[in-house]
Amino acid sequence: MTMVKTFDELAVEGLRDIYDAEHQITEALPKMEKAATSPQLKQAFQTHLRQTEGQIKRLDQVFQLLGQKAERKTCLATRGLIAEANEHIKETETGPLLDAVLIDAAQKVEHYEIASYGTARTFALQMGNSQVANLLDETLQEEGDTDKLLSRIAETNVNQKAAQQ
Amino acid sequence: MTMVKTFDELAVEGLRDIYDAEHQITEALPKMEKAATSPQLKQAFQTHLRQTEGQIKRLDQVFQLLGQKAERKTCLATRGLIAEANEHIKETETGPLLDAVLIDAAQKVEHYEIASYGTARTFALQMGNSQVANLLDETLQEEGDTDKLLSRIAETNVNQKAAQQ
Repeated sequence: MTMVKTFDELAVEGLRDIYDAEHQITEALPKMEKAATSPQLKQAFQTHLRQTEGQIKRLDQVFQLLGQKAERKTCLATRGLIAEANEHIKETETGPLLDAVLIDAAQKVEHYEIASYGTARTFALQMGNSQVANLLDETLQEEGDTDKLLSRIAETNVNQKAAQQ
Repeated sequence: MTMVKTFDELAVEGLRDIYDAEHQITEALPKMEKAATSPQLKQAFQTHLRQTEGQIKRLDQVFQLLGQKAERKTCLATRGLIAEANEHIKETETGPLLDAVLIDAAQKVEHYEIASYGTARTFALQMGNSQVANLLDETLQEEGDTDKLLSRIAETNVNQKAAQQ
């Protein structure tokens, strides 16, 4: 275990945690897309996979700007979120009910990322690094948009059908 | 493993997950309060502990309204969030840096709850149960307020001191 002794080290550790989370998410999204029934939801997961790949490249840029290696640090929280999602997926039959489960799981992951990027952006601003803060803010906006899109799909396309079961 | 076959069952499973999460959080908060240095942060954790106890009572009411037993279902995501928080706490020396870590961890938990209560409220509305939806909405507002309070403490009271380390 390495002790974190400076604010810069703390910021970099946080970024490595998010970097690992994003990689875990790229592995989970194709499975979620496959499990989904609603075409809108399948599309949303496909789009978010491409977006997540872009977010990883943005983090590569962030590490470069900070003069740090782009390394992953196992994100136990994302591991827990994905383990829970897998458990709920197993318990639910394919169809609108499973779509509702997938949306719930994806929104929990989005919120984890919103909190993580929110902290990372605040740290970058505190360090006076507006270039890094702006890159992190771009991703933060995308995560917020994805969360809203998932709410719309739930409300217009999934929950009503699920409630008939 | 019990299969979830109806929307009502799905909604109740979600509430049992949150019910467990809230209990896990009441166990974590006193440790976080003890680890904090900033008096404002200590106070925020104390206040949030009392608030969380109130949120558990509100969930008891929700289960009663739905004619369901108030049971916990292990929330793997919260377990992961708390495991990650403990890991980060161990890696950081007491003081402003650790306060920044504690705020980050607490905001991640808040966001998990915001996503969970958001889904639960939407499900209650879909079921036409506005009394349950209103109770869940009260908690949702409290979680959002706690998240904003933590951001304010970070920005006005913690990050500047942490950045000097």
